[in-house]
Amino acid sequence: VINVTTESVLKSSTSTRKTDSKYLDIFRVQTEALLAIHDFLYREELVQLMPVLLSPVTDPLNHPVYDAAINYKDQELQLTKSMILHKQVAVAALDARGIYIVSPNIRLEKDLHSNRHLLEFSQLDIELKKTSANEFMSMMESLMACIFRRVKIVCSEELERLGSEIHLPKRPFKIYSSLSLLEEFGEGYESEISNLEKDLFWITDFNREFYDREDPDERGHYINYDLFYPEGYQEALSGGERDYEYEVLVRKIRERGQNPSDFDAYLDYAKKGLLCPSAGGGLGIERLVRFLTKRIHIGETTLFPRVPDTKILM
Amino acid sequence: VINVTTESVLKSSTSTRKTDSKYLDIFRVQTEALLAIHDFLYREELVQLMPVLLSPVTDPLNHPVYDAAINYKDQELQLTKSMILHKQVAVAALDARGIYIVSPNIRLEKDLHSNRHLLEFSQLDIELKKTSANEFMSMMESLMACIFRRVKIVCSEELERLGSEIHLPKRPFKIYSSLSLLEEFGEGYESEISNLEKDLFWITDFNREFYDREDPDERGHYINYDLFYPEGYQEALSGGERDYEYEVLVRKIRERGQNPSDFDAYLDYAKKGLLCPSAGGGLGIERLVRFLTKRIHIGETTLFPRVPDTKILM
Repeated sequence: VINVTTESVLKSSTSTRKTDSKYLDIFRVQTEALLAIHDFLYREELVQLMPVLLSPVTDPLNHPVYDAAINYKDQELQLTKSMILHKQVAVAALDARGIYIVSPNIRLEKDLHSNRHLLEFSQLDIELKKTSANEFMSMMESLMACIFRRVKIVCSEELERLGSEIHLPKRPFKIYSSLSLLEEFGEGYESEISNLEKDLFWITDFNREFYDREDPDERGHYINYDLFYPEGYQEALSGGERDYEYEVLVRKIRERGQNPSDFDAYLDYAKKGLLCPSAGGGLGIERLVRFLTKRIHIGETTLFPRVPDTKILM
Repeated sequence: VINVTTESVLKSSTSTRKTDSKYLDIFRVQTEALLAIHDFLYREELVQLMPVLLSPVTDPLNHPVYDAAINYKDQELQLTKSMILHKQVAVAALDARGIYIVSPNIRLEKDLHSNRHLLEFSQLDIELKKTSANEFMSMMESLMACIFRRVKIVCSEELERLGSEIHLPKRPFKIYSSLSLLEEFGEGYESEISNLEKDLFWITDFNREFYDREDPDERGHYINYDLFYPEGYQEALSGGERDYEYEVLVRKIRERGQNPSDFDAYLDYAKKGLLCPSAGGGLGIERLVRFLTKRIHIGETTLFPRVPDTKILM
């Protein structure tokens, strides 16, 4: 449904023109969406932490990216690909309902060239303490409804100029299992189902990174979820309940062909019993803004797009 | 007045203990401060942009740091030390009153080992279009008053437990010139005057990075400012009016012994007339939280401190 070359993104680069009212409309939508997020999570009594950019340990991700690390005084520090491991430590360390962080993530993509990937992007990362997947999913449905409602009301003029119509999501959202979708549509099921749906929906039970909780009663099934946009816009949020016990984490790291010693700093907390049950997820800000403003390419949601395989101008 | 070894920061690391209510109190203060900031800047009609982490060009800073860069597909990308250059481009590109960004900054300090330096920290970066230093300073005084008032009212219990008393700042804040302070106190004037003062104050007219505006009527004087905390807590915000004309920028880069070609991506905008007059500044979030919660070391404001010359645990 959606297809564009990176040239069209570059053509709209700021270096070739004076002010462009399209960007101001997009950023006003972004500003309202962010305010809706902060207001909502404040009312839910979450505390806001600041992001971590450099760390001896980070998310291994579920797809290949180039290494991004620097050295400082004999220590190799990786640029964080997500806040997941730090979120688990933080949510266990604090006697609060949960935490959230607006954090930039760096992912130097090797193979992913789509209309929804950037080399760096911002993610709203939320983690709730001792909370089930269902509770988290329910909170996210409320959050999305809040964001959509606020933007639809406050930014009606901006949306009209951008040619976007916001449809308030019906709750509860539909839930699909990844296994049944795979059976029905084959490997490209995420794109297929997103093209078909008219409203936000969930897909559950993905076999992916070690930290997402494996169903202890049904090995090979996972208590995790992705929130999807309809109309071909695909992933909005990715998350799950978390595994937190040392032996389980080590086993799952090994099963994925990864090396537990790469996660020493994090596993040290697990070994000492300093992790706890939690559920959470990460919502991509640029993808949210892209959906709200109905942009073809995610690079259009920023003045400084970092598109895979494309020269960065500024 | 304030002096501590990094050991005391590491002792409070999360890896050695279960939940610590001190951190929750600190993060509740941080959450209120951030909400006050977003609410205030929203009412001032600024639009919020997302941070940029990797760029061919970044702030040269006014003090030595180790290089922090990575490579992606034949392009060297630096970790941004501040958003200043991108802010200038963005504020010129948008027909808005101004912009703001909550952005992590990476500064691999070489020589700075103080109670107020971290290798990475978050900065509230604001830039107002076609605005004078006086107007920006006045807005910042209102912002600080808003933050202090909200935290004092909403977090009274947290502040009591932390042993912090917040004094609402009297406006207008006092203004000192760096030259008169240098004459009175010598090289260590920033620390001296911060120890003596009981309330927030400004210091103006610093000869520093090329982008701060040099007074066209009085060469060697600069239309810039730092906001300072009292009681020895020192810098809160650093900013200024900006130079934006190509010839002026190139001359000032050369005068500072820097190479204009290192700033090609940015200077390209100036050459095309795509920069404009503006004023702004960056407010360190961790320094703000440190002052509000009266912490000895800035590392105490985060669960994951990155203290210069100290091993990063997680």
